Amino acid sequence: MINETKTWKVSYQRAIEYDIMESSDLFDPLNETLVSIGKKDYTHRFVVVDSNIEKYYGPAICNYFSRHNVDIRLFVLPGGETSKTLQSYAAILSELDLFPIHRRDEPIIAIGGGVTTDVVGFAASSYRRGVPHIKIPTTLVGYVDAAVGIKAGVNFNGHKNRLGAFEPPQKVILDKTFLKTLPTRHLLNGVCEILKLAIIKDHRLFEMLESNGSTCVEEKFQDEASSQILRRSIEGMIEELQPNMFEENLSRNVDFGHTFCYGLETACGSELLHGEAVLIDMILSTILARSRNLLSHDECERIYSLILRLGLRPDSILMTPEALWDSLQERTIHRNGLQRIPLPKGIGKCVFVNDVRKEEVQSAWREFIGMGQPQWQNQQTLNLMK
Amino acid sequence: MINETKTWKVSYQRAIEYDIMESSDLFDPLNETLVSIGKKDYTHRFVVVDSNIEKYYGPAICNYFSRHNVDIRLFVLPGGETSKTLQSYAAILSELDLFPIHRRDEPIIAIGGGVTTDVVGFAASSYRRGVPHIKIPTTLVGYVDAAVGIKAGVNFNGHKNRLGAFEPPQKVILDKTFLKTLPTRHLLNGVCEILKLAIIKDHRLFEMLESNGSTCVEEKFQDEASSQILRRSIEGMIEELQPNMFEENLSRNVDFGHTFCYGLETACGSELLHGEAVLIDMILSTILARSRNLLSHDECERIYSLILRLGLRPDSILMTPEALWDSLQERTIHRNGLQRIPLPKGIGKCVFVNDVRKEEVQSAWREFIGMGQPQWQNQQTLNLMK
Repeated sequence: MINETKTWKVSYQRAIEYDIMESSDLFDPLNETLVSIGKKDYTHRFVVVDSNIEKYYGPAICNYFSRHNVDIRLFVLPGGETSKTLQSYAAILSELDLFPIHRRDEPIIAIGGGVTTDVVGFAASSYRRGVPHIKIPTTLVGYVDAAVGIKAGVNFNGHKNRLGAFEPPQKVILDKTFLKTLPTRHLLNGVCEILKLAIIKDHRLFEMLESNGSTCVEEKFQDEASSQILRRSIEGMIEELQPNMFEENLSRNVDFGHTFCYGLETACGSELLHGEAVLIDMILSTILARSRNLLSHDECERIYSLILRLGLRPDSILMTPEALWDSLQERTIHRNGLQRIPLPKGIGKCVFVNDVRKEEVQSAWREFIGMGQPQWQNQQTLNLMK
Repeated sequence: MINETKTWKVSYQRAIEYDIMESSDLFDPLNETLVSIGKKDYTHRFVVVDSNIEKYYGPAICNYFSRHNVDIRLFVLPGGETSKTLQSYAAILSELDLFPIHRRDEPIIAIGGGVTTDVVGFAASSYRRGVPHIKIPTTLVGYVDAAVGIKAGVNFNGHKNRLGAFEPPQKVILDKTFLKTLPTRHLLNGVCEILKLAIIKDHRLFEMLESNGSTCVEEKFQDEASSQILRRSIEGMIEELQPNMFEENLSRNVDFGHTFCYGLETACGSELLHGEAVLIDMILSTILARSRNLLSHDECERIYSLILRLGLRPDSILMTPEALWDSLQERTIHRNGLQRIPLPKGIGKCVFVNDVRKEEVQSAWREFIGMGQPQWQNQQTLNLMK
């Protein structure tokens, strides 16, 4: 008889590689960027757009592919967070299954905001255990954040992004002309993610925002200064994501603004945009950092004054400190048992803390509420919630 | 103005590593294998079993974890192919979401046949974009095939494994004592996958099956010769899977028996077990190989006679050559535009062909039907479908 047991080690190095490239006028038939990826002859593309994109660009998209003899099926996803569901995922997959694409060289194309690229990335990860996809973000938050990395997913069971995949895209195409038609509220939504990077890891980006941020918003990010800010943001994101693509390390400085934000979004639903929740979290975290002497009084003031200059106004939402505390508990499970809250240590640097107590959260919340009224609202404000 | 566009390259090497280990009497409280993986204190495990396993081992499993102070939630999946759905996947995820586990060190445990490990692997891949899971196969097809690799998934839209993920397990634990209680039909189901490896890549394994295969079935794979056959099969599978874990190369010799099989399973539903469909496909492919002079007459006879000796009987199912042809078309899409049919070239070697015509399939089918009646059924047969 064989008594000893045997063990086999299985190991593999998976090479992941993709490009993030700028382009413009993507649907101009003379621009071959989009059709140059994948199979050329007798070819098909499954294209998912959100309803806003369909409205503005639907005919141009159809014309573009038709001019290049590509047979497409256009799937329209209703815009907004309410589409980020397992039902949308299944609907995309059902439709896709009726329009057979080759498994490797007829990439799915997602054109839209973060919701669209997130849902499509997840669907692409599951179809035949993975087919390639191309992400074309059309919002600022997609442009500098959602589309840059490999995180895809849907909300589930009342929880944000509870299901999903780490699914590398085949390509990300950045065309900032989409931002021209973006409403200010949605531009500011993306500005919050840029500000996040600036505060937590990039003092130079912070200065750039101080000098030109408000003009960028006015110019809908079409000017030279905007290009520089966008590029620096993307480079910052890549710098953080690339060495930690599957989040082996759960202490991530890009999680700054993403600890209490989770509960805020869960509580407020789609009324509060992601960046708006991040903003509130960043201010709370700034207060926590100040109370721990990680930030000086002047540094705090500099952060608040940049927020004001950018036209950002945290909403005085109905939120209890208990709910913020619950959000932290949930994130602690997500971060495998440690709080790992990224806090700024000076502007442009980060430390992680694991010992925040409930009283600290309560007191930060009180300070936030107290400062909120006079400080933010005495200005000519845009109340983000209104 | 900036006119040139910019491109960033993102790249990453993901290291994948897991063990496949033998053990026995897994639920004996003295066996620490299962509790030694992951968090030790104040810990939780979400355990998914199929209904057969619950019936025979439910109390032992609960007792085992309770003795080790592990708080478990047992989720029971009805046995059989009909559970391999997006609904089961969502049901597992809903229940899991009510039983918070740490993201990294409280692995989900799947105990059951290929359906169970496939559905759980897919659910684990999606929950928080991936939580670890352990696979414990309890059927022969799970033991030598489904649980060894990283393919997980569910059926969708009438198609086998249409959705899923490549999800490396944290560990695979092989305990062949589960096979003791397996009905013969299900043992033979797994034998077909062993035979597949023997014909397409391992002449020595073929000889081992000739010498001891039928005894292994009688002994329910508990004897010494069985251990050797099981280990050689697993090593063969690892040899094929390890260098091609994400199927970068779509020409896979382990796809022998998996070209026409696809349509057979789709047409017959859960009445036909996977291995039974693979068997029919292997015989058809053997006929194709013979007609192309890849196999000699004697080699064919040796294959048929081993099939008989093992107690395998292809069912004379209701199947049209058109449906087989459609199956090949579907697999051609799946294999990105080429047929890539693995055919044996002599026993133990493989070639891929891309030019099988419809007439060839029709003629192979006629030969199969013609030989079927006298050759297989004059014996003391076990008709697998009855």
